[in-house]
Order: sequence, then C-alpha cells, then structure tokens
Amino acid sequence: MGHPGVELHNLHFERGPHRVESWFLQQIFKVIGPAPLRFTFPNGAEASPPGISPIATVVIRDRWTLAELIADPEMAFGEAYAEGRIQVQGDLVGALEAVYDSSPSGRAERSRYQCLTSAWMNWLQDNTPSGSRHNIHSHYDLGNEFYKLWLDAQLVYTCAYFPTPAASLETAQEAKLDYVCRKLELVPGETVVESGCGWGALALHMARHYKVSVKAFNISHEQILHARRRAVQEGLRGQVEFIEDDYRNVSGQFDAFVSVGMLEHVGIHHFAEFGEVIHRCIGHRGRGLLHFIGRSYKSDFSRWIRKRIFPGAYAPTLAEAMNVLEPYEYAVSDVENLRIHYAKTVEHWLERFEASSDQVSAMYGDWFQRAWRLYLAGSIAGFRAGTLQLFQITFAGARSAPTSWTRAPLYQDIHQPGAVTLWTHATS
Amino acid sequence: MGHPGVELHNLHFERGPHRVESWFLQQIFKVIGPAPLRFTFPNGAEASPPGISPIATVVIRDRWTLAELIADPEMAFGEAYAEGRIQVQGDLVGALEAVYDSSPSGRAERSRYQCLTSAWMNWLQDNTPSGSRHNIHSHYDLGNEFYKLWLDAQLVYTCAYFPTPAASLETAQEAKLDYVCRKLELVPGETVVESGCGWGALALHMARHYKVSVKAFNISHEQILHARRRAVQEGLRGQVEFIEDDYRNVSGQFDAFVSVGMLEHVGIHHFAEFGEVIHRCIGHRGRGLLHFIGRSYKSDFSRWIRKRIFPGAYAPTLAEAMNVLEPYEYAVSDVENLRIHYAKTVEHWLERFEASSDQVSAMYGDWFQRAWRLYLAGSIAGFRAGTLQLFQITFAGARSAPTSWTRAPLYQDIHQPGAVTLWTHATS
Repeated sequence: MGHPGVELHNLHFERGPHRVESWFLQQIFKVIGPAPLRFTFPNGAEASPPGISPIATVVIRDRWTLAELIADPEMAFGEAYAEGRIQVQGDLVGALEAVYDSSPSGRAERSRYQCLTSAWMNWLQDNTPSGSRHNIHSHYDLGNEFYKLWLDAQLVYTCAYFPTPAASLETAQEAKLDYVCRKLELVPGETVVESGCGWGALALHMARHYKVSVKAFNISHEQILHARRRAVQEGLRGQVEFIEDDYRNVSGQFDAFVSVGMLEHVGIHHFAEFGEVIHRCIGHRGRGLLHFIGRSYKSDFSRWIRKRIFPGAYAPTLAEAMNVLEPYEYAVSDVENLRIHYAKTVEHWLERFEASSDQVSAMYGDWFQRAWRLYLAGSIAGFRAGTLQLFQITFAGARSAPTSWTRAPLYQDIHQPGAVTLWTHATS
Repeated sequence: MGHPGVELHNLHFERGPHRVESWFLQQIFKVIGPAPLRFTFPNGAEASPPGISPIATVVIRDRWTLAELIADPEMAFGEAYAEGRIQVQGDLVGALEAVYDSSPSGRAERSRYQCLTSAWMNWLQDNTPSGSRHNIHSHYDLGNEFYKLWLDAQLVYTCAYFPTPAASLETAQEAKLDYVCRKLELVPGETVVESGCGWGALALHMARHYKVSVKAFNISHEQILHARRRAVQEGLRGQVEFIEDDYRNVSGQFDAFVSVGMLEHVGIHHFAEFGEVIHRCIGHRGRGLLHFIGRSYKSDFSRWIRKRIFPGAYAPTLAEAMNVLEPYEYAVSDVENLRIHYAKTVEHWLERFEASSDQVSAMYGDWFQRAWRLYLAGSIAGFRAGTLQLFQITFAGARSAPTSWTRAPLYQDIHQPGAVTLWTHATS
C-alpha cells in the first residue's frame, strides 16, 4: 500500500542529490510511509521527507544494501542492521515506532516473493514436537547467564504488570505473577498445571503465596535446570514439580491451567491440539489463564524475526485464540490488553541490555548483539504503536464454580501477594 | 447427544406406571439428561429419574403435548407452556436451570427437521433494514407502560452491574451506565454516538455526568418518543439528539462509539456492515464499547424464542464478535463477562413481572403473560448455567490516544458518577 499523499518527488536532499539515490529513497518511503527519518547514502547524500523534522538518521553503507532494502525490506533491514551495513543514529526505538506509525495499518504490502517465502518458512518451522524442541532451543537455551544480564532477578521473560509506570521491573514482574494468581482465584490446596513455565518464577510464586501444588512443563532444558535448582533452594520441591516435556504430553487432572508466554510458540495450526490438552487437564470444571502476544489483525511476524529470533512464532488475534477455547465451550471471563505494560517491560530490558552490550558482544559477537538490540527495540516500537498486543485471557469451564462477583478485588492491595480476599458469589 | 449414563429403563414411577408414558419419558430424558424433575401425565401417572429428588413438577395436560415434546422439544415446550398445556409447579427457574445443567454441553442434539426449520427461520427473520424494523417493532414497541411494570425507573432493558449482589436494581442500572462511561474514559466535550439507545438512559447519563454530546440511534418508535421526552424534561436537549433510524444510517464523526444490547439484533451476517458503520463513525482514532449477550459456543437461540420473543436475534461467540472489529484493526482493550450480573438482573425483572402478572394478563392476555414469564425465567436459567454469556468489549482504534495505565480507576468510587480520576499514561 503506497502513500500517494506524500509528495515523494519533493524529498528534501540536504547534500548531493543523486538520481539513483533519489529513486531508491522514493521506493523506501513508498513502503514505510512519510516517517520522520533522515537517510544517509553511500555517496554521502542525505535526504528526508519534506516538511518533517527527522528524529533519527539511517546510515546505509553501500548500494547493495540499498538495493536489498527495495527488493525485500522485511528481511533486508534486520540482516543489514545486524551486520552493520545499516546504522541508526539517534533514537532507534523512536525510529522504528515512527515507521510503524507512518504505515497506516502496520501492514506493509508484501510482494508475491515475500508471501511465498513466508508460507515456506511457516512450513519449515512448524511446531511439531520435534520442531518445537528445535525452535525453543534456539532462543531459550542461549544460556541463563545471558538472560541474567538483562531480565529481572527472577528471570521472568514475559510482559510485567506495572501498578504504576514508575514501578521497578522487579516490582512489576512480582506484581504480574500475583496478578495472574488473583485472576485465577487460586485457593490453598488446589492443583495447577503450567504449560511453558520459563525459569519457574510463576510456579514457585503460586506455590509459596497461594499454597497450591503445581506441575510445570517446559521443553527448554536450561530453563528447567534453573527452575529445579530454585525449587530445591527455596524448599518448594514438595509443592512444585518441573517437568522437561512438551505441552502435548501434559497429563493429570488439575483445578487450573495457566500458560504465560507460550501460545505464541504453539502455532496456529496446533491450537486445536492445545485446547485438547487444556480440556484433558481441567475438563469442564476447571478454569485457566492464557497470556500471550497477540494482534488486532491477522499477521505473521516478519520473516527476519522468525529467521533470527523466534522461529515458529505466531501472535494470534483474539478470534484465532478462541480456536483454543471455543471447541470445549470454555467461557471467557476476562480479557485484558496489557500492551503498554509490555512496551514498558521491554524498555527496562533494552536499558539493561544496552548497559551490558559489551558483555553480550564478548559472549556471542557483535552480530548477535546488534540483532538482539533490534529485536528488543522493535518490540517496544510494536507494543507502543499497536502492531503488537498483549492479551491476558481468563476462562472457565462450563461447570466451573462461580467466580468473584466483580473484578474489584483484583485491585485491592495489589502489592501484598497472597493477601487477596475474594468476594463470594451469593446466588440469590 | 443422549445420556447413556442414566438408567432410563429404571425411571421411578410413583403412581400408575404405563407403558406409553414410560416410553415418552425415556425419550424426554434422552434429550434433557437426568434433570431432577417429576413429570405428571394426562392419565395421572407420575415419574422422575431414579435416585434424584425432584425440585419441580412438570404437569403435561394431554397426550398430544407429550407427542409434540418428543417430536420437537425446542418449539413444543414453549408453545405448550404459553398455552397452559404444560404447567411447572415449583421453581420454574430452577427447573429450567436443571435442564441446562443436566445436558452437559447446553446443546441439545437437533433433528434434521429442526436444523432446516432453524435455518429457514434465520432467513425469514434476516435483519435487513426492513427486517430489522419488523423484528424490533414486535418486541420493543409493545408499549412503554408494559415495560414500566417490571424494569427499573429509567427503563434500562440490558444487564445491570451490581457493585454487590444485594444492590437494588435501580442502583445496579445506574452503576452499569456509569461503568460503561468509565470504560469509555469519556472526557467533557467529546462526541459519542450510541447505536441502539433503548429508552435513552445511557445517552442522558453520559451527557449529564460526563458532559459529552451524544447522537443516539434507535428504530423503536416507542422508545425514541420516551427518550426525547426525557431529554426535554431534563434540559439535555442541547446535548443529546435522539434519532429514529437504523444503525446503518448513522452518520457523522465521533470520539466514541457505544452499543449496549444491540449486537444481538444485528445478526451474524451483518457484522461486517456493523463494523463498517463503526469505522465510518470513529475511524482509527476513536474507541468504543460493545455490550451484548454472547455464547461460549456457536448456537442459535431456540426457535421458540425467535418465533415468540426475539425474532432475528443471535448471540455470537467472542470469535464471531471479532468479525465486527478485526477488519478495521480495532484492538480489544478489555472484555468482561457479566453473566452472573445478568442472571441477577433478570431475577429482579421476573420478581417485578410476577408481582404485576395480573396487569400483564389484563393488558395482553394469559398466553402473553405465560410466554414472557417463560422467557424471563429461561434467561435467568441460561445466564446461571452458562448457556448464555454477557460480554462487554472495550476497543480502541489503531491510532487512538493511550488508555488508562491500569483498570484500577474503574473500581474507585463506583457509586459517584462522574467522579472518575483516570491515571495518565506516562510514556517513558
């Protein structure tokens, strides 16, 4: 979808206008819209859209990169940024957000080549049991030392809940863990199954503060090892069992099902299977919570993100996510969109990541450090601009016990884990 | 779907077992499951499922009714109840709820005849502009005096919000109006369009307490007349315009779109059209709220309800409702399921209705009085059992201003209309 409203023939060249660069730039702005960016070209020419003061400068090192950007921007930008052939001087997050904003729908029009490659990639990265192992390993098994550099102390790698915008990341992650427990209305003695438990923070929080017993599944080997160590150190081994296995192999009967940040890795073609697992675990009497990155419109992640960061990942719309729940008549009781909290969460991550960038480069090289910076910055931009959403869905089986009368108790004493007093449902 | 688990050959006949009745009863229990009901037959025989103590007695007056119940229970029960050929002694709501509960999925298996008739009825009652006028007229134009007998003083004919279960209906409806305004985060001076405004209570509440100007649409003539009178009496004519027209003809640009209890009358085949209207009104910058009766699984209303009470009505699942919002990339910010509040609301309505049943019979006859009692009782049962849900969806355009940082402000001072203090979204 082009931007016929922008006078692209009228680009403001500050230095050395050149016919070839001028043409390239017009092509770029056709894709990204009138973003407030200055472009610097291999020959030293500089240009920006007319009448807009630039917030960052995109330096393109060679003509080949320029050509790639035109041919396949979805892949070329990330590749060139990670390799240092493109640099962004100034506010990287702001620049990416500006691009999302200047493209009215957040959806760039894709060429036939891009569509085919994208579908091919989806097929290659399908989340079969072995595909999932590969996809998850490549991201989550990078080494716990790496994630310790920029996550919070508990290593919670999902959207936090900031009671106020000024809350610290540690407070906000603790608040999120508790918020999830409150939404689930956990009662001491209940049983909970967690699908995709990361480094174990939520499972341990539930056990410690809500006195429930938890079976937590994950196929990331590094994460499970860490979680098990924590359970032992914190004396919670009797209450929490960490199991290194695929969600499809989850077995047992539970009062509640919870999955935070895993649905993105299930893949849309496996939603029915995922719903089946939930139903096997909690039947019609249980309840559950799904927390995941979603969309307000159907869209794949960029091919670059799927190639370099999150193979096999897909962020569903709410309608798509219902394919997990509706076949078993689970009734949605609550959906909350926390995208501004995720923007804030990743701002904290990126700040810590930047502070450790030398260490990251030393561990994995400059390419990796730049690629991950771009991924984090792009995530902030996406959550700010609304091309990404964060949905927290609470649901209940057709025969589950009545829930709280209102949501008001969720907002009492949010900082006191375990202190929740639920209103009782008085049936007349 | 039968209930092979129930020993239907072992029905407990208290008096006069008879081969024909016994067979009929087994057929009935195959459809409704092992509900705790006693059946009394034309010949005086009485029976109930074994080992279950009955909570109500269903009196069937003649064999023809019995045969109809077997052939087409979805239609026959309502028809026979309204005509007095079936009576329910004891707790009518409880009896209906027990039937919903004893049928595991809430979905009775339909015969081919029932499926065809249902589809034919959907086609006949399609909500085209003229179809909608007819469908709406037959229910909402029964006369304001009738609704005054059993609704609250403001005539709010949608789910109320009970801050506590003991709140009065008047308080709960006022709280609902305010809750909707808070969820919309209305700011003085803004413009709001309301689609399907009933007797005008919400539009007037928004104007009075939130100082916004409202254009409110409705095709019920009786309702619009009442709403206009109120606007004049309350000195709000400058702020609220009540327009007797179809939602498809809504025009103008607004900050917010709100529709409470109308989506059920749009019909699933017109959801795209409805989304188009919303987009025309608020574009990508506005926000809105949809409040409607929904489902946790795809299902039509019973043919009896569509024939006698709500022609053309359809309660969508969340996934289906997304067909209104996703084409225009509206991001859902909040979904709340208020079904237990709707059960409570209709309990109040039914109590007032029963207290005025002589007047209702005098106005419209016994048939009408019984039919409406059944509709109200069945609604309570449906909301309690979860065969009906009530969804309140808040959504925002891709370029709308940021919303409140958390939902906590929604739960501050819920009883002080207009006193809401929204947290500001601090972008880092």
